[in-house]
This record gives sequence, C-alpha cells and structure tokens, in this order.
Amino acid sequence: MVAYTYFEDFVVGAAFETPAVTVTAADIIEFATKFDPQPMHTDPAAAESITGGLIASGWHTASLTMKLLITGRQYTPAPGTLGLGFDKLRWLKPVRPGDTLRLRLTVLATRESTSKPGWGIITNRFVTVNQHDEPVQEMESSAIVPKRVG
Amino acid sequence: MVAYTYFEDFVVGAAFETPAVTVTAADIIEFATKFDPQPMHTDPAAAESITGGLIASGWHTASLTMKLLITGRQYTPAPGTLGLGFDKLRWLKPVRPGDTLRLRLTVLATRESTSKPGWGIITNRFVTVNQHDEPVQEMESSAIVPKRVG
Repeated sequence: MVAYTYFEDFVVGAAFETPAVTVTAADIIEFATKFDPQPMHTDPAAAESITGGLIASGWHTASLTMKLLITGRQYTPAPGTLGLGFDKLRWLKPVRPGDTLRLRLTVLATRESTSKPGWGIITNRFVTVNQHDEPVQEMESSAIVPKRVG
Repeated sequence: MVAYTYFEDFVVGAAFETPAVTVTAADIIEFATKFDPQPMHTDPAAAESITGGLIASGWHTASLTMKLLITGRQYTPAPGTLGLGFDKLRWLKPVRPGDTLRLRLTVLATRESTSKPGWGIITNRFVTVNQHDEPVQEMESSAIVPKRVG
C-alpha cells in the first residue's frame, strides 16, 4: 500500500479509498443534538414528514469524512502538515441511518511552495460515497506538506 | 430583533452576531476522539510540543459554528430552506480550551431563483470569532430560501 506522507507522495491523479464507517440513528441524533438541533436530524417522527425520515447533519458527514481520512492507513501525514482549508463543500444526497460511508481521495494538483522552501501545496478532492457508491458529499482541500528530506 | 426567515429578510449587508459558546478541553478531546483523532486534538501532553497545547479540530469549530447559527434566535429558517453548500472554509487561528466563540453572519448576495419561482438564493459570510474578537474560521454559505407569501 502506498502511504501518503510527504509532498512527493502526492502525484496528480493518484487516488485511494478508505475503509467504511456505518452511521446509526443514535449517532445522527447525538451529533445533531449537540451541533445541529433541527428536527430532521434529531426527531425521527418529525423527520418523516420533512425529509422522509432522519437524515444526518451535513457537518456530521464532514466530520465522519475526517475520521475516515485520519483512521484510514493510507494517509499518514508528515509532521508539520497543515490543512489550509476546504472549498466547494457540497452535500449531494442525504445520509440516513444504516448508511455506510467511505472516502475516495484524489490528488488534484501539487505545486512547490514559493514562500517556504522544502514544502509544497497539495490540493485533493474528497468524495464521500455511500454503500451504493453514490456520492453524498464532495469538497476540495488544500494543505501544506513537507518534502521528503535526503 | 430582526428574524432571518424568508428570502426578503436577507438584505445585502445585513449582519448579526450570535450569543457565545465556550469550548472546554473535555469537549475538544471528546469530539476529536470520535472524528479527528490526532494528538494535537486528543492528547494535552503531546499537543504541548506540536501546537503549544491542545487545539480543537477544525471540524469541531465548524460544527460549533452550526450550533451557534441554529441555537441563536436571529436565524429561524422557513420550511423548505435548504443549504446548498459552503465555500472558502478557512481556519485562521487555533481554538483552545476556554475560548468563547460567536458567529458573525453577513449577507453577501441574494438573487431570485431562475428555476424555482417563489424562491431565492442567498449567500452569507460566516465569521467565527473568539473572545478577543479574532476570527478563528471563515466560510461562505449558499442556501435556497422561500419568499414570503402574500
């Protein structure tokens, strides 16, 4: 398995997919009660008429996507790696109880840092897919990553 | 207090600030253990040498920002309001235990929907600030919102 650690490991077009995580109704309600208390996320009965049943907060899906990245073994960031932010975050389909999510990461672009010698900027596309291989969320990240030394 | 509910309530340049939420070390560790298990977010001792102490996962800050929006009383979305996504998400400063966060929302742009009569698209700027009034996160949202009827 290729490890994505240093700048040189991120080659445009390279891609990997993580193992899966399953989302339960209890997970959806617990997250939303804390962070996104709206009835379609917290109240199964009310959600029936709003969204045809409980759906996960988009921020829950985003947080689970981070979990998939960090707990998957492909991505093992070098010390100092720093996420710069995310763009084009879109929620494409509802995530419902019992759904099983995986992250599919593709390297979109890389360039050497002009301000920080020995470092580079990478841009990755994150697509979170469900058990039917349907994208439920997409976004693009950029991060500054050290080059391999020696 | 102005309520932001229907399309007409979102006037370019209008702005509000929510009440605050305080983040504890326990909150930071609990969120990160579930969603972003990296030592600067989960292990106070290890975080000392990495980031000068524990810092919150960026996704924790984003989720707390949603909590501020939903639990603040200014934003009371009309039925059917649907978030389309977020752009330009940037984490600007670390969030540390004891920090107190507020959301400052400004309406950036509005337009009538061309495909859905009676609805409009709004773009808002979200800036999350700490107790020193320093921005810790910024992003832009877009949402489709119904017009007021009658």
